[in-house]
Amino acid sequence: MSPFAGTPPAPYYAVIFTSRWTPETAQNPADYYATADQMHQLASAMPGYLGIESARGADGVGITVSYWATERDIANWKQQLDHLAAQQRGKREWYEHYELRVAKVERSYSGPAGR
Amino acid sequence: MSPFAGTPPAPYYAVIFTSRWTPETAQNPADYYATADQMHQLASAMPGYLGIESARGADGVGITVSYWATERDIANWKQQLDHLAAQQRGKREWYEHYELRVAKVERSYSGPAGR
Repeated sequence: MSPFAGTPPAPYYAVIFTSRWTPETAQNPADYYATADQMHQLASAMPGYLGIESARGADGVGITVSYWATERDIANWKQQLDHLAAQQRGKREWYEHYELRVAKVERSYSGPAGR
Repeated sequence: MSPFAGTPPAPYYAVIFTSRWTPETAQNPADYYATADQMHQLASAMPGYLGIESARGADGVGITVSYWATERDIANWKQQLDHLAAQQRGKREWYEHYELRVAKVERSYSGPAGR
């Protein structure tokens, strides 16, 4: 699977989620990854879903950006029941800290040309 | 150093840069990391710089999000001479593929509360 989201021409929306795992999650991330996989699958079936990109380093800091057609689609996904349960586990178990930002993508480029 | 950017209340701008290293860079990333450190230092001295967040996984896929007060500040940083040289090296040597998106952050949250 490509790690790049095949987003359409702007405008569309991005949810930028930056987080740091708790030390417990870093030691045993199996549960986290199982739920993350499940959430990606559920999200990809939601209206307005455009794609997701994700990276996590050895320091336990991760960034996940999901892309959506409209703000309404983001609100809708936020309220999905399994996703609400995962959000609760994230707050209680997985994340030491997180920052979530909702942003409107205005333009985009890709590269390098010719590769 | 905190991995989280201490951004002000929205609105402000985000540059979302998702990339995959070439196999050569993955094997020997020292040069990449030295330049990345230098770019972070230079960026942080630019007008309108608000912070940066970055993560790269073992698969060589990374996401770096830099935050800026205005679109003008982003254009300004894009044209900085050392940054232009680094962009050229990125295209020639470091990145197999990248996606760059400029987005206007409309709202943000952080958590978990009480930690």
